[in-house]
Amino acid sequence: MTDQNKFDYILQQADNCLILGQRLAEWCGHGPILEQDIALTNISLDLIGQARLFYQYAAEIQGEEKTEDDLAYLRDAWGFKNVLLVEQPNGDFGFTIMRQFLYDTFSCYFYEALMSSSDERLASIAAKSHKETLYHMKWSADWVIRLGDGTVESHNRVQQALNELWSYKDEIVIETSADSDALAAGYGVSLAELKEKRDAKITAVLEEATLSIPEGTYSHKGGKEGVHSEHLGYILADLQFLQRAYPGNEW
Amino acid sequence: MTDQNKFDYILQQADNCLILGQRLAEWCGHGPILEQDIALTNISLDLIGQARLFYQYAAEIQGEEKTEDDLAYLRDAWGFKNVLLVEQPNGDFGFTIMRQFLYDTFSCYFYEALMSSSDERLASIAAKSHKETLYHMKWSADWVIRLGDGTVESHNRVQQALNELWSYKDEIVIETSADSDALAAGYGVSLAELKEKRDAKITAVLEEATLSIPEGTYSHKGGKEGVHSEHLGYILADLQFLQRAYPGNEW
Repeated sequence: MTDQNKFDYILQQADNCLILGQRLAEWCGHGPILEQDIALTNISLDLIGQARLFYQYAAEIQGEEKTEDDLAYLRDAWGFKNVLLVEQPNGDFGFTIMRQFLYDTFSCYFYEALMSSSDERLASIAAKSHKETLYHMKWSADWVIRLGDGTVESHNRVQQALNELWSYKDEIVIETSADSDALAAGYGVSLAELKEKRDAKITAVLEEATLSIPEGTYSHKGGKEGVHSEHLGYILADLQFLQRAYPGNEW
Repeated sequence: MTDQNKFDYILQQADNCLILGQRLAEWCGHGPILEQDIALTNISLDLIGQARLFYQYAAEIQGEEKTEDDLAYLRDAWGFKNVLLVEQPNGDFGFTIMRQFLYDTFSCYFYEALMSSSDERLASIAAKSHKETLYHMKWSADWVIRLGDGTVESHNRVQQALNELWSYKDEIVIETSADSDALAAGYGVSLAELKEKRDAKITAVLEEATLSIPEGTYSHKGGKEGVHSEHLGYILADLQFLQRAYPGNEW
């Protein structure tokens, strides 16, 4: 391995994309209306596409003849670096929307900053992903507003989702050593600057949605260091089954 | 393989036990009250114990140095011969109870008859399992009555469960070629005789539970021949993950 730190840094975001993409894929055929079912599946595919670009690059850094498939399908839960937010179960449509919104408001500003990475490969992946994520954030923010400022039922459900997810929103902007090393080395982004923009966006959307902003400041964490909830094991069992049952199989 | 037909016959019941045992294990830690959580888990363990006895015997018949673990962990969905009833998702407690009751009323009379099998090994597994299943049937029948003749909410929920599961109850008593060959060869049981006793028991309990007996006679089938619902794939992904990820690993 030529650069363990860059490898870890890339995996953090690759794993976020893969696990959230897998969660959204669970909606396929179960969306509340056809158009939103398709929207969820399209976002899922975008995320898995982003994951692939990161995994391909990470595999090159790792060397040892590893491929993107090894990284996605043959690591165990404790090797995954995604935040706990993205492994939370889908819940109802409102819960999925709120989880998505709290992720999109990170990823959108993350990619925006990563476009200035000193690493050209990362900058190029970021540029492609940023376009997609701008659309994702518009979609999830619109839905947060529509549900929050909708019926009593939709308001209460999405408020409940916000309350439950609030303590999961900040792990993604809390620096790991991979984050601070990446920033210092010039290829990473400043999570402090990002958090400021992100929080402003979150506040603006939640206010427009007539939702109450929770007061808690506690943050779950551990995912970025490989310490996950029970949920991730079940996600990986589904996701990795085919490669585990038929090692080396290709489409 | 010395006796393909006996092998298939044994797997039918072994797979019923394993898959229903796995479904009940999903309740572990989620039961409505502690005592029933433990009851569900105990029944799960009984079923997995029965599955092991059958798999051990089936593996001996198969030869080729196969073990019970190969049969449980390394077959694909289309090799499983369990009925569709046992792979249905748990639903609420009432749904799990009704699924269990419709299975127990089969297995209890099945083991009772199998105790007279001309195959001493099968007769002996049946004798041990019958004792356990008598208790299971008492437990699930008691709960069907308690919920059916309980509150409006519990009555409606368990009635709904009965309505949904009604078309899954008969696959288990519809003869496959393995069933008819086993009966002709003397080591199997008569499903026609069994069905009569079972139906009388089901009717008596449902009437005491003040539940309406559905009128439909349609029966889902396919499971005993390896044609399963989507559910089984997810069950096996969870169940088999460890052996698939770490082939040959032992406790």
